[in-house]
Amino acid sequence: MTKVSDRQLERYPIYLRYLLSIRDSGCKSISAPAIAKELSFSQEQVRKDLQVIARSSGKPKSGRDIDDLIEDIKQFLNYNRLTKAAIAGVGHLGKALLHYRGFADFGLEIVCGFDVDNALIGTQENGKEIYSVYQIANKVEELGIEIAILAVPSRSAQDIADRFINAGIKGIWNFVPIHIKAKEDVIVENVNLASSFAVLQHKLRNEEL
Amino acid sequence: MTKVSDRQLERYPIYLRYLLSIRDSGCKSISAPAIAKELSFSQEQVRKDLQVIARSSGKPKSGRDIDDLIEDIKQFLNYNRLTKAAIAGVGHLGKALLHYRGFADFGLEIVCGFDVDNALIGTQENGKEIYSVYQIANKVEELGIEIAILAVPSRSAQDIADRFINAGIKGIWNFVPIHIKAKEDVIVENVNLASSFAVLQHKLRNEEL
Repeated sequence: MTKVSDRQLERYPIYLRYLLSIRDSGCKSISAPAIAKELSFSQEQVRKDLQVIARSSGKPKSGRDIDDLIEDIKQFLNYNRLTKAAIAGVGHLGKALLHYRGFADFGLEIVCGFDVDNALIGTQENGKEIYSVYQIANKVEELGIEIAILAVPSRSAQDIADRFINAGIKGIWNFVPIHIKAKEDVIVENVNLASSFAVLQHKLRNEEL
Repeated sequence: MTKVSDRQLERYPIYLRYLLSIRDSGCKSISAPAIAKELSFSQEQVRKDLQVIARSSGKPKSGRDIDDLIEDIKQFLNYNRLTKAAIAGVGHLGKALLHYRGFADFGLEIVCGFDVDNALIGTQENGKEIYSVYQIANKVEELGIEIAILAVPSRSAQDIADRFINAGIKGIWNFVPIHIKAKEDVIVENVNLASSFAVLQHKLRNEEL
């Protein structure tokens, strides 16, 4: 198996999104340099990234077949393999995540939500049952939940993370803007909106200069 | 001005989040190697990143002062400079973004929302007025909106982006999972949940091997 970096992994969904958009516009094949130009990546990087996942190599004249590339990326990213997840925290963000349609495209199945609010516990959101956080240990095992998606208030994020970790969760997808401590065999991946905004804001300020 | 890469910019909010968490635990100073270990970055990278932003260099014995580091990062990221933004699309995600408290921490002020739904237009969400998308051109100028935050359905994302671009917006923060086309002087920064999930899922699958 080829070793790929986190940064490289992050690029495959970006290629996929772009390839889907140009396929919709009727495009049949594309070259690595054309992809590089449109996405502002280096040609060398794109060529290397596509080499890792592509079953067929591009033809010098006509470029790579877009349908093939799309299939290769989906297979590489395991989009056919379902991963079960639960949302912890059914506030505004948690509700948005429970309703987000895009997760199914990348093989993520949200099976339920957890909250502390008695008014929410026992109700459903987008057809998903909301359980009490005291049921985390039982439900993780019963429902085969592999990933906890954290969308709770910052002050309770570590406590809720610990409940999932003690229940044997494999991964935490953390949407809460705090640093989560976990033992080494639990994978924590952070969605840090501040990081994305830092890039945008820095470029805006540089344009002003 | 020191040239910094996008990847480097993305790391500063991660340092900040970590430093705030250990300051809360009573920690006064920290060394670059200790930060590197906790965040799984290389020591060299952390040292280089901190050199770019720190006004005072660390002492070999006691490490760097955490309060100083926090202030230096906030200043470097322009967290004191307010940037005005509007949310386009007041569905589940748009509502969550209109309620998100963390934006103020990084100098982002959400001034209003836009939608096509007559039931929403004229109402408020978290104290922010919701306008019709037909008012985008007027409101961008009137309210001094610099950034459009896109949270509309995929099918209308390019159309709404074009309305903001024609209204003279400087930057688009795109939460919609499609590729947005914009002229070169408009900065488009994508929040791609699929990229973040790709990293998490790849690590989970590797742990299984």
